[in-house]
Amino acid sequence: MASDKTARRPKAETPKGFRDYFGAEVTERKAMLDAIAEVYHRYGFEALETSAVETVEALGKFLPDVDRPNEGVFGWQDEDKDWLALRYDLTAPLARVAAQFRNDLPSPYRRYAMGPVWRNEKPGPGRFRQFYQCDADTVGAPSVAADAEICAMLSDALETVGIPRGDYVIRVNNRKVLNGVMEVAGVLDPADPSKFEAERGIVLRAIDKIDRLGEDGVRALLGAGRKDESGDFTKGAGLSEAQAEVVMGFVGANERVTQLLARQQDVAFGMGDEQQTRELGYAAGLGVPGIAKKEKGNIPDASFNLRNRKTLEYLLELVGPSEVGKQGVEELLEISRLLAAQGYGPDRIIIDPGVVRGLGYYTGPVFEAELTFEILDEKGRKRSFGSVAGGGRYDDLVKRFTGQAVPATGVSIGVDRLLAALRAKGRMGGEAAGPVVVTVMDRDRMADYFAMASDLRKSNIRAEVYLGNPKNFGNQLKYADKRASPVAVIQGSAEREKGTVILKDLILGAKIAESATLEEWKDRPAQVEVPRADLVAAVRKMLGQ
Amino acid sequence: MASDKTARRPKAETPKGFRDYFGAEVTERKAMLDAIAEVYHRYGFEALETSAVETVEALGKFLPDVDRPNEGVFGWQDEDKDWLALRYDLTAPLARVAAQFRNDLPSPYRRYAMGPVWRNEKPGPGRFRQFYQCDADTVGAPSVAADAEICAMLSDALETVGIPRGDYVIRVNNRKVLNGVMEVAGVLDPADPSKFEAERGIVLRAIDKIDRLGEDGVRALLGAGRKDESGDFTKGAGLSEAQAEVVMGFVGANERVTQLLARQQDVAFGMGDEQQTRELGYAAGLGVPGIAKKEKGNIPDASFNLRNRKTLEYLLELVGPSEVGKQGVEELLEISRLLAAQGYGPDRIIIDPGVVRGLGYYTGPVFEAELTFEILDEKGRKRSFGSVAGGGRYDDLVKRFTGQAVPATGVSIGVDRLLAALRAKGRMGGEAAGPVVVTVMDRDRMADYFAMASDLRKSNIRAEVYLGNPKNFGNQLKYADKRASPVAVIQGSAEREKGTVILKDLILGAKIAESATLEEWKDRPAQVEVPRADLVAAVRKMLGQ
Repeated sequence: MASDKTARRPKAETPKGFRDYFGAEVTERKAMLDAIAEVYHRYGFEALETSAVETVEALGKFLPDVDRPNEGVFGWQDEDKDWLALRYDLTAPLARVAAQFRNDLPSPYRRYAMGPVWRNEKPGPGRFRQFYQCDADTVGAPSVAADAEICAMLSDALETVGIPRGDYVIRVNNRKVLNGVMEVAGVLDPADPSKFEAERGIVLRAIDKIDRLGEDGVRALLGAGRKDESGDFTKGAGLSEAQAEVVMGFVGANERVTQLLARQQDVAFGMGDEQQTRELGYAAGLGVPGIAKKEKGNIPDASFNLRNRKTLEYLLELVGPSEVGKQGVEELLEISRLLAAQGYGPDRIIIDPGVVRGLGYYTGPVFEAELTFEILDEKGRKRSFGSVAGGGRYDDLVKRFTGQAVPATGVSIGVDRLLAALRAKGRMGGEAAGPVVVTVMDRDRMADYFAMASDLRKSNIRAEVYLGNPKNFGNQLKYADKRASPVAVIQGSAEREKGTVILKDLILGAKIAESATLEEWKDRPAQVEVPRADLVAAVRKMLGQ
Repeated sequence: MASDKTARRPKAETPKGFRDYFGAEVTERKAMLDAIAEVYHRYGFEALETSAVETVEALGKFLPDVDRPNEGVFGWQDEDKDWLALRYDLTAPLARVAAQFRNDLPSPYRRYAMGPVWRNEKPGPGRFRQFYQCDADTVGAPSVAADAEICAMLSDALETVGIPRGDYVIRVNNRKVLNGVMEVAGVLDPADPSKFEAERGIVLRAIDKIDRLGEDGVRALLGAGRKDESGDFTKGAGLSEAQAEVVMGFVGANERVTQLLARQQDVAFGMGDEQQTRELGYAAGLGVPGIAKKEKGNIPDASFNLRNRKTLEYLLELVGPSEVGKQGVEELLEISRLLAAQGYGPDRIIIDPGVVRGLGYYTGPVFEAELTFEILDEKGRKRSFGSVAGGGRYDDLVKRFTGQAVPATGVSIGVDRLLAALRAKGRMGGEAAGPVVVTVMDRDRMADYFAMASDLRKSNIRAEVYLGNPKNFGNQLKYADKRASPVAVIQGSAEREKGTVILKDLILGAKIAESATLEEWKDRPAQVEVPRADLVAAVRKMLGQ
């Protein structure tokens, strides 16, 4: 049994669900965020840093993911009995700032924010209670031009941090189109928008799960309900088969468009050249009826994409007489035009009805950035990497405070997932370079060793003196190894008398130790002795600088 | 009266004692921290980022400033009834990490950390409940070489962020010397260190307040006690006059050394040349008795400073027979030698018995960086800027967790004070450059305006399209003004037909508006019309690039 005295010692542990980040884990994330901030800044966005603590009143009682009711915040009462809490995202504080400083901020207000957020939810493997978010939002811009700008900026940000074109795609949809579909399906009454709210919530969450549940699972949730493998029953939206059919037409829009395009290609000229296909599409008058007027104008035809056009046509058909639905399709068309004018083609940003995004508060365009390359999952199966960023328009968030609706749109980048992607692509996580370690042979001559390290640092070489107990020299080399040190500097009394230092090439040394034969290394000595005056030059050479 | 509906709206306010940081407030702090991190990294220190939340058990019940008992942490109970809290500094989490990962971390472990900390104390003007700290510490290095390294690194960091040599000084003292003085004064018994603990606490806090209370105030606190202007009585340490005299000898050490140096100069050769003084000092055998042996060795005499030497001599006299006192002086001598070997002379780092630092947990060398230039205070009086960083050795902090003493030393930079200093020196806070604003004359041609902004950004020029309601053009120019935009781009239908754009030089425009005569600006037009194809080149020219 532990003695009383031992029992009273505090445990050296992070709280459950929290973790520490060491060395390159910190600096690599920082480098990524710095690169993204530079892109945001170039687009005219301004930095904003709110404090971690907000009043619970300002945060609001809702958390973004309404389908996970266990989620909560970390909160406490202050000395005046007001409830305070740690922010759970960067959007709620933005809404508070936009309301609090509405007379001082420029309008529209473009801002970016980066920092940790906290969620009081059950921790799990890879699921932490503190994590980073990286957001950019435009407050006070009613037109979808603001949404288009966010999409272009997201594309630039991904390429800047090292996701090459072709390895990602940004999918854009519009909640208004979905609302049009809901109208046609009979679960949205434009005259009384509060009617069928529960049903629409179920529909929204069901179609957001298409990848996981498949078509049959979604159909079950649209109808009576669904029993999962464990036997748990989830209540459905109660739609009739005809109603469900309309919704499924939306869910399957992407596939349907692919079929339409393939058929048309076959008819026209078999599996021909893409450019020809596109031109033929235009020649065949595949204009979207009712919005053809706007399409002509300043956009060169060649920049317009057949697939986007076909998708919009199909959606327009789907929303039929719904006014909000038609408006939604028009907005998507406008976004396509603005992006095309800047050269953001469908190789980077496409219209995709498959993007729903679960959050209830989106009111217009929604978007999601997906990485398209494959990685191996924990079971060794190939899987596509998936979503790393998402956002959309949420026109009602500031209204809570002021009573006035303020349009807003924005994006949030999943910092940890994007970092994981960069590491998977080998764009980050290379061996971090440790410092040159100046070893200590004679503890009375620390001043000499300090002067060596100082000389190296003055030449911008990372360097340090060994500061542990110098008695056991082997420990010093073990330390250098643990630090991933490239070079060890040694000066014993013999070298001191000759005015020299010994340099050990630790990277080469490790390679020689691994290798069966010394043959390939024989031209490059793992250790050299040089005059003290040549220390910096010789280290530089060993580092390959 | 507000209606019920209005009353239910949440207040858009930060909690008391918290604030938001906008634009340059964020980016300038970041630039400063980045520069400091680079110095720390070059010295071999590794980044560490712990989470904001710790168990109260791990944080410990003590806060660093023990003389402000109202201070506390923000804490709450988690679902398992464990108490969690926001960290109040970066040292307590380091102690926890050093204990938790003691088998994995290199030893010595050099780490730096930067980030916000939280204090549940009464907010006041300029005193916030969340603020930044920026720390570097070495854990597991017993020798004062680690302290010397921290001082050199602090000096480099200050110069790197823009505090020139001569505008700051780093003062170094040693708690062991103070303990020696306490021994001589009879309030420290080496055989029973726990005796007189309360008295020593009062002495420590009293001499730390010498600048504010003056000699008489400190003497009162060393004796029976002190009544302040408001009539409040603070209990004193109860020292006799003879005991107090010993302590006051320490407090006045700096002045005394100055007198000694002046007298010696007068006697020797009047107010002669400093180099001569130094040489004469050596010639006269001003060696510190008992440590003269170590002084000779590898340090060239010329790098040793007369003032430091005189100070050490005086301190050695003061601590008399105290073993710990003598050891403290020897350590200070070793620090001087190590710094001199790297060229850090007394123009940057000096031995100064005036530095005490209030924290109870320091056990060896303590240091403080002071900015020596003057600023005007709120009443227009000249004042020296004061302390911006401090730290020292605290060998017992990790012991709480493991039972084993682990030596540690470190420094914390007062981020906000250092930023204020840089702004006072005009090294930061210049007008931040706003984006070029592309105005909207025709809302059906957003695509064209987007393409212009995109072209500018591709050439690395910060640019954005106006995204508010474009109806009132005056509002667009007011917006550009609020953004501190240097250039506005305008293309109406007339320019569109000619294939041109108009560029307004808003900086020049503002100057012309201020100036009484247009004479001085006549050669530089505030507005030009250029072909659309020349947009980027013409903006560049206007920006002076």
